[in-house]
Order: sequence, then structure tokens, then C-alpha cells
Amino acid sequence: MKNQFFQVVSVKEFRSLLNSFSPLSESELVSLREGCSRVVAGDIAAGEPIPPFHRSSMDGYAVAAADTFGASEGSPAYLDIIGHVDIQSMPQFSLERGQCAEVVTGSSLPEGADSVVMQEYCHPVGSAALQITHAVAPGESVLFKGEDCSPGDTAVPGNAVLNSGQIGILAALGIPAVPVYRRPRAAIIVTGDELVPVEDSPQGAQIRDVNTHAISCLIAQCGAQPINYGIVPDEEEDMGRVLHAACQECDLLLISGGSSVGTRDVTLSAMGRLPDFHLLAHGVSISPGKPTILARSGSLPLIGLPGQVTSAQVVTMVLIRPFLEYLQGKRRFPEDDAAGRTQATLTRNIASKQGREDYVRTKLKRRDGQLMAEPVLGPGGLLRTLLEADGLIRISENAEGLEKGESAEILPL
Amino acid sequence: MKNQFFQVVSVKEFRSLLNSFSPLSESELVSLREGCSRVVAGDIAAGEPIPPFHRSSMDGYAVAAADTFGASEGSPAYLDIIGHVDIQSMPQFSLERGQCAEVVTGSSLPEGADSVVMQEYCHPVGSAALQITHAVAPGESVLFKGEDCSPGDTAVPGNAVLNSGQIGILAALGIPAVPVYRRPRAAIIVTGDELVPVEDSPQGAQIRDVNTHAISCLIAQCGAQPINYGIVPDEEEDMGRVLHAACQECDLLLISGGSSVGTRDVTLSAMGRLPDFHLLAHGVSISPGKPTILARSGSLPLIGLPGQVTSAQVVTMVLIRPFLEYLQGKRRFPEDDAAGRTQATLTRNIASKQGREDYVRTKLKRRDGQLMAEPVLGPGGLLRTLLEADGLIRISENAEGLEKGESAEILPL
Repeated sequence: MKNQFFQVVSVKEFRSLLNSFSPLSESELVSLREGCSRVVAGDIAAGEPIPPFHRSSMDGYAVAAADTFGASEGSPAYLDIIGHVDIQSMPQFSLERGQCAEVVTGSSLPEGADSVVMQEYCHPVGSAALQITHAVAPGESVLFKGEDCSPGDTAVPGNAVLNSGQIGILAALGIPAVPVYRRPRAAIIVTGDELVPVEDSPQGAQIRDVNTHAISCLIAQCGAQPINYGIVPDEEEDMGRVLHAACQECDLLLISGGSSVGTRDVTLSAMGRLPDFHLLAHGVSISPGKPTILARSGSLPLIGLPGQVTSAQVVTMVLIRPFLEYLQGKRRFPEDDAAGRTQATLTRNIASKQGREDYVRTKLKRRDGQLMAEPVLGPGGLLRTLLEADGLIRISENAEGLEKGESAEILPL
Repeated sequence: MKNQFFQVVSVKEFRSLLNSFSPLSESELVSLREGCSRVVAGDIAAGEPIPPFHRSSMDGYAVAAADTFGASEGSPAYLDIIGHVDIQSMPQFSLERGQCAEVVTGSSLPEGADSVVMQEYCHPVGSAALQITHAVAPGESVLFKGEDCSPGDTAVPGNAVLNSGQIGILAALGIPAVPVYRRPRAAIIVTGDELVPVEDSPQGAQIRDVNTHAISCLIAQCGAQPINYGIVPDEEEDMGRVLHAACQECDLLLISGGSSVGTRDVTLSAMGRLPDFHLLAHGVSISPGKPTILARSGSLPLIGLPGQVTSAQVVTMVLIRPFLEYLQGKRRFPEDDAAGRTQATLTRNIASKQGREDYVRTKLKRRDGQLMAEPVLGPGGLLRTLLEADGLIRISENAEGLEKGESAEILPL
């Protein structure tokens, strides 16, 4: 039978199969600037304390807190000013009880000081005495040496996606370059005798290749590198040659088109000629996107995407992007499946077929502070339905549909 | 008085002042690949219909729906097969009533056909006759010419942030390059006598420059280009020279440090020497981040960020990133202020001061399906508080704090 699928698996099974591949282990050293949003390969330990010394977090006077106890407007304390600590030098003196020293925000505290009185409460009397009208507690307005991290502490944990806070602590520690996992290289191969490149004028019933561009965009947005192999003729020989080359150059192959069972379909037979080939799934219980293939050549994942443009994009959004994040070490998979999902209230009923997971394109609108999901209508094959959508409504394989007013799980686009 | 601020404005006023600057108007032409996540400069019109002809969305037989009316398993319809339409050619025949033609997914429909019967319901009888066991409605399994867009339609609206759906329709239309707004160039200038570059070994009470790296990361994450000018000595002459150069090269200046009123502060006086200088705000009622300056030299925004590392990052997250998105045309401002914000339930009381908007670093955790915000404790000046945070809790200037169990507005990090 022409349209039969073999080894159709559930979305959950498909994710488990993806999980049998290993994240990329190779790392590269990049500058802090290039490291932004990349994934750290391994824990990074602090080599020195941050802050490197007790620092004032205010302009004012460094004191021993005990010398200010009970001080108030009505009953001020009086201390001897014995010096000033400028911001770039270590103090060359220490405080005895009854003494204080002027500091600025960031100054190193002299020995003997455990707190800083804010300038507002300090009134110099002549050049050598200070009136203090406010008591401070030990530690007040002080950042203690090592309070951020001490030598040997994990400053940034492995697999963190570097953000400004982590880039900041690496800078503070004097670590100008950071090991991050390599970005996965995803081959994008399209096939279909009707396709021509975007630059060409279609002849007869030819149309332009959409998937190369749309899938590349989705791949790039999750931090992987799309490597385009263009349009490959629907012939086993040609496809075999391209697959072989892509296997040498990439970490993952995405082949769009030719994944349904039919006379025109050469993807699978060309894949089958790759070394150590295993077909893992031929068809997924997902709509749109059923004709999706998962296979491997050795440890290299091979994914056949549907040729239909919206199906190819939905499968990439729902299944492939999380997988690429997993390959980069950005998430554990498939346990973190719900990451980034949200909830919205449906504006209408949606029908669905039990036994498959449906993803319905939807607009999202805020009404009276509530997020509303308004499904986008129209034939699934139209590009417009994705253009108008802000998200995908997930309907689980156990549901026969969702009702107006129900809260639904949304994958934002 | 040393710590006085002049022209302290509310967060709302600061945003209105930012809104008085114009978004960048210059655009550049980039390939579809480079266009991903960029902002389209002006509407892009379709030059041709998409789909370019009536296309089958199934493998099966093209028919006039009327010829199938009433057809069922028990009472099939019989049609004459007059041809086959392959995927890359236009059919060279048209259908009369009572006739059908074999099509594949993507085939052009012959004249006279208005629908496609799925293969499952079609049973060839000999080579020239077809038994059909299922009626179809006009339009079934067909994508009509121009259903996505017709010549003259807006295919992608101006100011759209290009996603895979839009990149896809541009490819379908044969538009290989797209005009997008230029990415804003944001100068990052840091000052502070205590600072040394990340590669250097601090001497005395010197510390390494964190803000260049942390702020660059935040700037890059929102699609702008950070241009680093390094550490500039706390001298009006040096700062003046750097500001002058940055004004020629950038669309926005961010100067970190030297923005509080004090003896060490040269940022403002150096800014004041720029042509057509106007001070718009000196201080914002935000915590952390009060010592933030907004000024302009002609139409160029000048922003003085606090030198304190966490304050500088919070101000950049809350005020500067939305502004950079506005400069790129990604959002109207400040109306879209709530974009990207979410809600979470507080795990403890938080105190706040009326009259200023507070942003409290928080961890976000999901508990029983509910998002919980657990404030990160510790002195504000520590890098650690940002490292541990997933979001910022906003406390409005009208509140004196928020209570445990209350739902709070969260700016995710």
C-alpha cells in the first residue's frame, strides 16, 4: 500500500529516540564577547576571591560599628578622622577604636573597620573629627572579600547559557576567554523535482524552495548553524552523494521532502546506503508533520522533514529546535519539554483526533489581562497560517479536542 | 551638597524622554539568511500570486466535486481517467464533466477540476476508469492560486521582526534580499580610576572592568551592536575626546560610571562640552539605578549608567534594552512596556519605598503548575544576586512593598 507508514511512533517515543543521541562534547574557547548566549563547557572555578577585598558600597566613613552604637541626631558619636582611602589604593593604615577614615564607593576598608556610615550621617568637625548621627550594624554598607565567590568555588556552572551576570563574574575573575560547546552544524537538504532556488524563475508548475530559508531561520534562532546544501534532485544517486558529504561536515542532517511513503520518495533509500544505518522512526503521531523520519548513521542523527512547508516548520519548532538545544547542552531532554511553554484561554472549540498530538497555529491576544488563543483558520498548506500565528496550541494525544474557554498549553513562536 | 541629584524623573517620565528620540531610519539590504530576526524596513508587497496556481494538497485524483456528490462505499461514482499531472509540469489538458486526472501533492490542477479526492478513496478499474467511494466538496484538498497572497498584497508588513514564516513567504515570492533597519551601534564607555581591563592584573585596590562585558552582552542579546571604547580615565579631557569620537561612530552612547553627583564625576561635564547638548534627566526614581543620566547631543541619545555593576545591568535590562528595540523598530515605545513580562506569586514579603520603582532580583520556580518568585537576598552590589536570578520583580512607585502570596509583575531575564 502506497501511503503506509512503518514504525510510526508517538511524540513521546520520538523524543526518547532523540534522547538516545549524545550532546556534542567538543568545546571551543571564545572571548567573553563571543561567549554571550553560548553554553559553558564544564564548571568554571574562581581563582581568586570576589570582591578581592572588603569594599565600601557607599561614600562615607569606614568605622568599627561598635563605635557608633547608640549614635543619633540627639546623641551623636564623635570619632577621629585618621585618613582617606582613595578608590585605587589599599589603605596604608589601620583603625584603632575611636577612629574612622573617609572612603568612597568601592574603596578598600582599612583593617579595624567593619562597616561604613553613609555620608548623610557624617558631619566633619574641623579637619580631624567626625560627628556621626546614626548607628550602623557590623557589615553595613560593606561587600566582604569573597562574598561573591572564593578561590575554588564554582563561579559559573557547566551547561549554563552565558548571560550578562555570568559574563560579569568571569570578567571580574580575569577570565577573558571561556570554553563553550561548539554550535551544532545542521545540514539542510531539500529535495523535490518541482523546486527551484529563490533566485530562479519557476517554469511550468515549478515553485520556489521555501524550506531551505524557513528552516535555516529556525535553526539559527536556537543557536545552531544551518549549512545549506541546496535542492537535490529526487534521485537516489544524487541524494546519496549529498548525504555522504553532509555526514562528513555536519552534526545533524535535516532532509526536507521525500519523507512520505510513495513512488517519488528516495530520501529513505539514499539514507539506507549510509554506513551503520538504522531507521528509528518512520512517521510520528503529530499533526501537522506525520511523515517525519528519524534514523542514524553511526552516531549521527538523520531527520527526514515533511516537504510541505508548514509541516516542516511545525516539526522543526516542536521537535527539532529542542533537540538542537539539547545537542548544545542548553537543556536536558526530553524532561525539559515544557520549558518556554505558556497557557492561554481558547476563543473557540478545536477538534482533534485521539492518538496524535496536534499543534494548531494560533494568534495570541491579551484581553482584560488574560492571554487568549484565537486559532488561525485556513488550509494547513498555506504559508499565511504561520505568518499570522504567534504560537502553537498543543492538543495532547489523549484529547479529542479542546473547548472554548478551556486553558490550553501554548508553544510561543 | 555632594549627593544631590537634579532633575530626578520617574521611570514613566524617563521612558517618555526616551520616546522623544526617533527610531533609526536607515535600512540595508540583506539576504534572507541574514534577515532572520531583523526588522523589515517598510511593507513588502507581493509581485505574484502564492500559490502561483491551484495546487493539490494530496496525492489522489483531481475532479469536479459535483461528479462525486453522493458517492460512498455502497454507491461509488465512476469517472474516466484522462491523464496524470506530474509535479513540475502544467497540465496540457482540461477536464470535462465525468473525467478525472491523477495528481500528486503539489500538482497543478487541470482546468475543470475544483477538488481532489484522496488516494484512499480512489480505486482504478483497468487503466482508464476510476471508482470513487467518497464525495468531496468544492475546494477540498486544493490550495487556490493567490490564497496566500495576490500581486499588490502586503506579504510582510513593515516593522515585522522576520521569523521563519515571513522568510518563507519572501522565498516563495522570489525575493532573495530584504531591506531591514540597520542595527543600532551602541558605544560602551566605562570610567573609573579603580578599573583595569579583564586581561590585566589589578594592583593595589584596583578591580577589573565588569561593565564593558556585562553591558555588551545585554546589548548584543537585543540585536544591537556593542562598540567598546574601553576604560577612559576619570578626566574631563580624556572623556571629552572619547565621547566626541563615539558620537561620530555610534547611534547611542552608554557611559558607565561617573554618573552620581560627586567630586570624581566628570561624565556630565564632559558630556556638556558636546555640541547641542541638553540634559534631560539627572537621576531616575528606580532602584537599583537612581544615578542614571539621560541627555542628548543633537539627536544622539547619551545615557550615563551607574558604575555599580548590578545597577548598571538592571537599568540596561529595564530601560535601555526596550529603547534599543524601539530604535530598531521592534516595538513602539513606551506603550509596549509590558511586552515580555509575566506574573508570578511571591514566596515572601518585599519592602519597598513609595515614590520609586523597585526591581528585585528573583528566582523563578514552578510549583504545582504555578510560577513562584523567590527574591534573591544579599547586598545589591554583589554580582551573585544577578547570577542567581531568573527575573526581576517590579514594584510600582505607588506600592510600599508586596506581600507573600501576592501576584507580582516579572521581567524575565
